[in-house]
Amino acid sequence: MALTGVLRPGHVQMRVLDLEESVKFYGDVLGLVETGRDAQNRVYFKTWDERDHNSFIIRQADKAGLDFYAFKVDSKASLDKFEADLRAYGVSTERIPAGEMLETGERVRFEIPSGHLIELYAEKKDVGNGLPYVNPEAWTALAEKGIAPIRMDHILLYGPDIEKSQKIFEDVLGFYLVEHVVLEDDTTDLAIWLSCATKAHDLAFVRHPEPGKVHHVAFQLESWERVLRAADIMTMNKVTIDMGPTRHGITRGTTIYAFDPSGNRFETYCGGYSSYPDWQPIKWTVDEVGRGIFYHDRKLNDAFLSVVT
Amino acid sequence: MALTGVLRPGHVQMRVLDLEESVKFYGDVLGLVETGRDAQNRVYFKTWDERDHNSFIIRQADKAGLDFYAFKVDSKASLDKFEADLRAYGVSTERIPAGEMLETGERVRFEIPSGHLIELYAEKKDVGNGLPYVNPEAWTALAEKGIAPIRMDHILLYGPDIEKSQKIFEDVLGFYLVEHVVLEDDTTDLAIWLSCATKAHDLAFVRHPEPGKVHHVAFQLESWERVLRAADIMTMNKVTIDMGPTRHGITRGTTIYAFDPSGNRFETYCGGYSSYPDWQPIKWTVDEVGRGIFYHDRKLNDAFLSVVT
Amino acid sequence: MALTGVLRPGHVQMRVLDLEESVKFYGDVLGLVETGRDAQNRVYFKTWDERDHNSFIIRQADKAGLDFYAFKVDSKASLDKFEADLRAYGVSTERIPAGEMLETGERVRFEIPSGHLIELYAEKKDVGNGLPYVNPEAWTALAEKGIAPIRMDHILLYGPDIEKSQKIFEDVLGFYLVEHVVLEDDTTDLAIWLSCATKAHDLAFVRHPEPGKVHHVAFQLESWERVLRAADIMTMNKVTIDMGPTRHGITRGTTIYAFDPSGNRFETYCGGYSSYPDWQPIKWTVDEVGRGIFYHDRKLNDAFLSVVT
Amino acid sequence: MALTGVLRPGHVQMRVLDLEESVKFYGDVLGLVETGRDAQNRVYFKTWDERDHNSFIIRQADKAGLDFYAFKVDSKASLDKFEADLRAYGVSTERIPAGEMLETGERVRFEIPSGHLIELYAEKKDVGNGLPYVNPEAWTALAEKGIAPIRMDHILLYGPDIEKSQKIFEDVLGFYLVEHVVLEDDTTDLAIWLSCATKAHDLAFVRHPEPGKVHHVAFQLESWERVLRAADIMTMNKVTIDMGPTRHGITRGTTIYAFDPSGNRFETYCGGYSSYPDWQPIKWTVDEVGRGIFYHDRKLNDAFLSVVT
Repeated sequence: MALTGVLRPGHVQMRVLDLEESVKFYGDVLGLVETGRDAQNRVYFKTWDERDHNSFIIRQADKAGLDFYAFKVDSKASLDKFEADLRAYGVSTERIPAGEMLETGERVRFEIPSGHLIELYAEKKDVGNGLPYVNPEAWTALAEKGIAPIRMDHILLYGPDIEKSQKIFEDVLGFYLVEHVVLEDDTTDLAIWLSCATKAHDLAFVRHPEPGKVHHVAFQLESWERVLRAADIMTMNKVTIDMGPTRHGITRGTTIYAFDPSGNRFETYCGGYSSYPDWQPIKWTVDEVGRGIFYHDRKLNDAFLSVVT
Repeated sequence: MALTGVLRPGHVQMRVLDLEESVKFYGDVLGLVETGRDAQNRVYFKTWDERDHNSFIIRQADKAGLDFYAFKVDSKASLDKFEADLRAYGVSTERIPAGEMLETGERVRFEIPSGHLIELYAEKKDVGNGLPYVNPEAWTALAEKGIAPIRMDHILLYGPDIEKSQKIFEDVLGFYLVEHVVLEDDTTDLAIWLSCATKAHDLAFVRHPEPGKVHHVAFQLESWERVLRAADIMTMNKVTIDMGPTRHGITRGTTIYAFDPSGNRFETYCGGYSSYPDWQPIKWTVDEVGRGIFYHDRKLNDAFLSVVT
Repeated sequence: MALTGVLRPGHVQMRVLDLEESVKFYGDVLGLVETGRDAQNRVYFKTWDERDHNSFIIRQADKAGLDFYAFKVDSKASLDKFEADLRAYGVSTERIPAGEMLETGERVRFEIPSGHLIELYAEKKDVGNGLPYVNPEAWTALAEKGIAPIRMDHILLYGPDIEKSQKIFEDVLGFYLVEHVVLEDDTTDLAIWLSCATKAHDLAFVRHPEPGKVHHVAFQLESWERVLRAADIMTMNKVTIDMGPTRHGITRGTTIYAFDPSGNRFETYCGGYSSYPDWQPIKWTVDEVGRGIFYHDRKLNDAFLSVVT
Repeated sequence: MALTGVLRPGHVQMRVLDLEESVKFYGDVLGLVETGRDAQNRVYFKTWDERDHNSFIIRQADKAGLDFYAFKVDSKASLDKFEADLRAYGVSTERIPAGEMLETGERVRFEIPSGHLIELYAEKKDVGNGLPYVNPEAWTALAEKGIAPIRMDHILLYGPDIEKSQKIFEDVLGFYLVEHVVLEDDTTDLAIWLSCATKAHDLAFVRHPEPGKVHHVAFQLESWERVLRAADIMTMNKVTIDMGPTRHGITRGTTIYAFDPSGNRFETYCGGYSSYPDWQPIKWTVDEVGRGIFYHDRKLNDAFLSVVT
């Protein structure tokens, strides 16, 4: 009861074009902590404040983009139950054995109608955030190494059939709709923001003809002043900024969109309200979507609806 | 699944010595929105951004302090189940009919071993936050009327037998321990912080001989700059500040403690980390409790352990 | 000695296309305080925290733009001396009698080679900032009415012969160069930032073929969080934002450029370093001017070099 | 004209009890940059953003406290003129040759009636702030090493005859009074805040029977969030905080007072308004001095009026 089942986004695996360049970028500029490399030559990262062994994994490939996005569930019993429920719902699942990813237990993987691979898992080793579990200080020096986000926060996926993906997350995994953008027919959603707990979004979708695309992975910052600092660090490191610093109308969060060296967009995000499953979703009409996405500019830039990896 | 059962703190009813003076204080200085008065002469408030009809209720009495603290649950089915589970656990419960509080459904009330009345309820009317559910702006003018917190956030209760109260919240209601302060015996908790979802605390207890006391009700602010603004407004309105602006080591939140005109302590609180039920609780030893409570002063002031209502 | 002669920017008079629409904009949205109207139908404003009667004056005209920009000097003796020095330097001056502007003493007006009218004056009535001169509070309710800047801060002028204007400000009026952008010839300045005291700029120029144009009048905010709030208020009031929130590389200040209802650009500006006359000026080469102006985007938008009034 | 004569506080020399412990403290915790040591075994520091070679100098002694406090003047001509003017005013002066302090020109030293040694100098080597003078970034990594203030900002001196010291600064050196606290007789000042340019204080005095004492040296931070960070770093390094984070009513600045390892109080200070010599000074009556000094607590702590070095 209370918070059970799906707890939060747990890890995301991304493809990059040049591994060492990306390791340098994610380690030194974004300021993630490298926690390991595996036999497949994947590099594992976590934010300084995350306690689980990894949340962001990269591997080298010819094409940038998303491999899979995963949620941590509260127990192996929940993992088994979700697998059974998914199958009963008509979703094929695959078991990936414990240890296939470093310090990570067995995973249940499934593809959703938008063309993305989603995973669930119950176990990942607690390696701590660098502060002791007894009498800790408020933060460590790692909190100021690079942009240094607090956590891997959410993902925005682009693909078709987003309403079918939404139903799986709602009906089987207990997610709920927080905000959505409705097309001119006042029926079809252009975009949806879903939460599994109290974040304004743990996962979002934009309707898009090509399946399996990713718009951005978001990392949470602590304050609007940290958003400014992130933008400064991007400039100092010649990181291409797509948009920001600004605010989203949707979720109210403050934000910068920028690109990693492979062209994967990432977001450094702060704030946004806390949402609850008993709340009425907020609706945006498509004529106001510009303000919904970029609250200050009140219009989408060209890249927003077109550049995905 | 995901976030079910107990969702969040929903309402708290406090006793004040002079109703109209308190209405003025909570309305004009703290900046809550008055949403109604009932036949019992209770005055109902919500924060500007809360959507449910009320979260903070005051009534006039000879003695300040807490009447009851309530959590919203996700459904009437959960309410029924919790009532049955509490009774099975040996906790007496009482049903309070819908409408006894304005715009609020049936409540299940029970007394916990620390001597406090706790309530559960499933229904409270959505009156909105003053922004439309279609194409809203980011905030309204009410966000700058008085201190203007975002939500009623948590409570700190003082009383005996806190480990017995803790067990009810954990075993029956699905809460989990986030942080705790342990006495010299390394076994007995002096204080505990409990969460029902992802806030670092929805409820906290300090061991105290006298039952049923309240240390403070906390209201959430959006930023450290809003904490400064809150302190400024307190000074402009001659509100007695107990401590702050400062940071807590426990939860890492930033804070001011101050007193309402009746001597009830309240907190204007910002930040703190998000916690999850799979996280190992953080332990504080009693020799470091000063730093745990007031991170900068590193010592408790006299009032902290003695002044309660 | 110390701070004498020219003290600070004192007032600026702008032309607007619709007086009442502009009064509403500058009063309600920007949050200036209206302090009077005169027989010429000019409307006078000050920021909430300025003590002198007025700093921003508008009049209705067929064409938006600048009438004149003025500096307060420390005494009538300085005013007389500056007039004599200007004439000795070959600059024609005109005396405008006390009272021609509300609550303002005699002014010395002159035209500079870039085609702008500049004024000096020694007297403007102290009407206070709404706080008493004995035991004041830290701020008043006016600090939260609209965007509510602290002061009229500086102006950016566009015109030819900026090096000749610069020499007048340096040689006669005691200004000094803080930063400049140099064209490919490494000799000719594209833009210059000048200070009369410790602000990184009290006045700036961009080389431009058409004389007498204004790029923006800037108003100072107290913090980066107030810059966000300003951008939010602009969106809520459908004010067109040209650029921002962002940072300038030049001066390091944070900023938003936006347009008033007549198309006059204004800036809400925060921070920037304090400069001193013994400091070596900072030079920007024209290939880096994008980063100098918009530190995060690192390129000029089309409007920056073309849209002036 | 404009800003001439006395430009700003330039250097302060303090006595510490253990040199290497203090070097570690000022370098690693406060985050000053060590720029040299001289034959007298003095250690020289500057803040990361200051351009002149040094602003804060320490030497080991048996007793903590102030050696001297110095202002930079705009030219050697001004230095000569100030020396002549001081002598004409009846103040004895002493010339200290160039090079007696590292990278610092000739100094004129004099004792003021409050018992403090004040110095003037015109030359100190520009060593830069670590950013180039051509196309600089907005800040460097040094801006996040320790507390990392922007500049040595001001000093508060304790001693007798403060009105006589005030007259020297006003009549000879061109300072002006910004705020003052008046005793019950409504005539005698308990405390005065003086500015030589546009800072709300470059120098302050509190009336005190013992001559030559120092209350604190202040270092400027950029934002209220940096004040929080400073307090956090103090706790992490077991630095004793005297008061704060809080706001001053006088100057409106935000602040922490804390002690160096020798018991010298220092301040990490942010904001405060910009003042001008044409402004009417703000007066505080002694019954409101608590709010004037500590705006939120509204009372002086015991240490404020008694602990000086």
